[in-house]
Amino acid sequence: MRVIYEQMFQEFNRVLLKNGFSMEKAQVCARIFTENSRDGVYSHGLNSFPSFILSLQKGTIDISSQPVKVEAFGAMERWDAKYGPGMINATFAMNRAVELAKENGIGCVALKNSNHWMRGATYGWQAADSGCVGLCWTTALPAIPPWGGKEAKLGNNPIVFSIPREGGHVVLDIAISQFSYGKMRTYQLNNEMLPMNGGYDTEGNLTNDPGKILESRLALPIGYWKGAGLALVIDLISMVLSGGRCVSELGKQETEHGISQVFTAFDLSRLPGHSEMSERINQVLDDFHDTELLDGFDRVRYPGEGTSHMRKENMEKGIPVVESIWNQVLAL
Amino acid sequence: MRVIYEQMFQEFNRVLLKNGFSMEKAQVCARIFTENSRDGVYSHGLNSFPSFILSLQKGTIDISSQPVKVEAFGAMERWDAKYGPGMINATFAMNRAVELAKENGIGCVALKNSNHWMRGATYGWQAADSGCVGLCWTTALPAIPPWGGKEAKLGNNPIVFSIPREGGHVVLDIAISQFSYGKMRTYQLNNEMLPMNGGYDTEGNLTNDPGKILESRLALPIGYWKGAGLALVIDLISMVLSGGRCVSELGKQETEHGISQVFTAFDLSRLPGHSEMSERINQVLDDFHDTELLDGFDRVRYPGEGTSHMRKENMEKGIPVVESIWNQVLAL
Repeated sequence: MRVIYEQMFQEFNRVLLKNGFSMEKAQVCARIFTENSRDGVYSHGLNSFPSFILSLQKGTIDISSQPVKVEAFGAMERWDAKYGPGMINATFAMNRAVELAKENGIGCVALKNSNHWMRGATYGWQAADSGCVGLCWTTALPAIPPWGGKEAKLGNNPIVFSIPREGGHVVLDIAISQFSYGKMRTYQLNNEMLPMNGGYDTEGNLTNDPGKILESRLALPIGYWKGAGLALVIDLISMVLSGGRCVSELGKQETEHGISQVFTAFDLSRLPGHSEMSERINQVLDDFHDTELLDGFDRVRYPGEGTSHMRKENMEKGIPVVESIWNQVLAL
Repeated sequence: MRVIYEQMFQEFNRVLLKNGFSMEKAQVCARIFTENSRDGVYSHGLNSFPSFILSLQKGTIDISSQPVKVEAFGAMERWDAKYGPGMINATFAMNRAVELAKENGIGCVALKNSNHWMRGATYGWQAADSGCVGLCWTTALPAIPPWGGKEAKLGNNPIVFSIPREGGHVVLDIAISQFSYGKMRTYQLNNEMLPMNGGYDTEGNLTNDPGKILESRLALPIGYWKGAGLALVIDLISMVLSGGRCVSELGKQETEHGISQVFTAFDLSRLPGHSEMSERINQVLDDFHDTELLDGFDRVRYPGEGTSHMRKENMEKGIPVVESIWNQVLAL
């Protein structure tokens, strides 16, 4: 079953308004949930919407609050998100980083007391749509052990890089774990092993059995010791820049809320040679695509390439939905 | 055999002066080579020094040139390194990024036409010594295939994050490949297999045989598709910010020279709560260390922890040297 973009947006908007969101905030959240499904990231689109609405009842999201500026030093600002909806805060923060970049060449907003931003790529696309290179990351609940350890101490902190390009931005959105827990659940439901080790079993052995990793809750970071290090530095930088919570503090809470994030934008529009840059980016991507392939692959894709294709297809044909979840939303 | 810091520094300085370096530039290069060995990164310290001197004869490094400012927009600047020595350029660029950060909260220098910076962590420590969070990366020769491809298209572009901390900064310095070629050569010389897959053989099969990877020159990126994406975005961002060469252009040259790099600093010294931050960082690191261990590990280490220990030991006992290489330097 497919639902057209406008209809999905209107349904999300309706439910958010019914749940007390202001018109402006409902529109931002409805747009992001719809865009996530439109881009093929259903897990952070329609499929997350009912649980997002349910989570409002926990009281960890304050739908009425606005981010408040805490400190400003030229091109760097600290904001307190005051526990507002994560998507609203992140959109606001990246927008502010872009404004600072347009004034100063580069801009950075460090945010504390925010909530789950759903899909990181959203804010990468946002920066690129404004003609900026975007770099942002978020902290998250402990889910990854230090290299050599077998307790979850490090956040599966996603990091996002984006480069604007006519015809489709390049946007990399990666969490620190090799596989997301959602992806591992899918493998488990299909009775399949992961194509490579994705975490540890409860004994501390590396395994590609998704069920064992879902039991231990110990995901393997990309690059083993390297990803573990990356998770730690993202946590520390988020804490020192924002003044907000670190990952171990999040781990002491019952739910993931009040998280720290950093948004950086680099303005390209005033750099000389800007107009030729799209051509140079295309040359890099042409060279990237022009590779002999491994068996089993029919092409290689740059980060964001699949998104651009999926977006076009879903705008033309409608957005695929799991019918039961769509009906759940209609009934909200 | 061990050599004390001051003696090693003076020998490097002598050889550099003899090879036409100015007093100021000789001191910077001699210091960095000595510090790299002092910190235990011998591959980028003493062990690289003779080949660095040899490379001066190729004419791809112009030891007399100075970086020149090309564009300035507030907190963001573009500099042309004019093919000067990479260590001098990188030290200059991070210093300038820190100056911009002290004025604007955040500062960024994009550098084109530079040369090999030796060890990335050097510039992370430098930013942290100035009270800044540092973030920098460099491009490098193609050495990694896109995910699904079997031709080296992507640079093994190292990325560095640093967080200042009393008692020893946290500094992560990671290349994109799971193992460096130097490390793989060491395994090969010892007739050992890598502890996990580190690249492809010439047929395109993943392997942990270092000899086969050294033959194919196809290293495996951290996190498979994730690291490949990371290598690509670092290349693109370096190119669009600096206006300099991309990785595929480097690959068409006979040697790695004229590379693009980005240096970003985030000033912490004016942020409120700065004085308590070291305490909070220590709490995070205490929690990190307080983990049950996997078999075969006696502790977990944060990025930079080993460096701090090694630095202390080598300053006390002298810096270990391979005697033949040390004698080579004495004879230069």
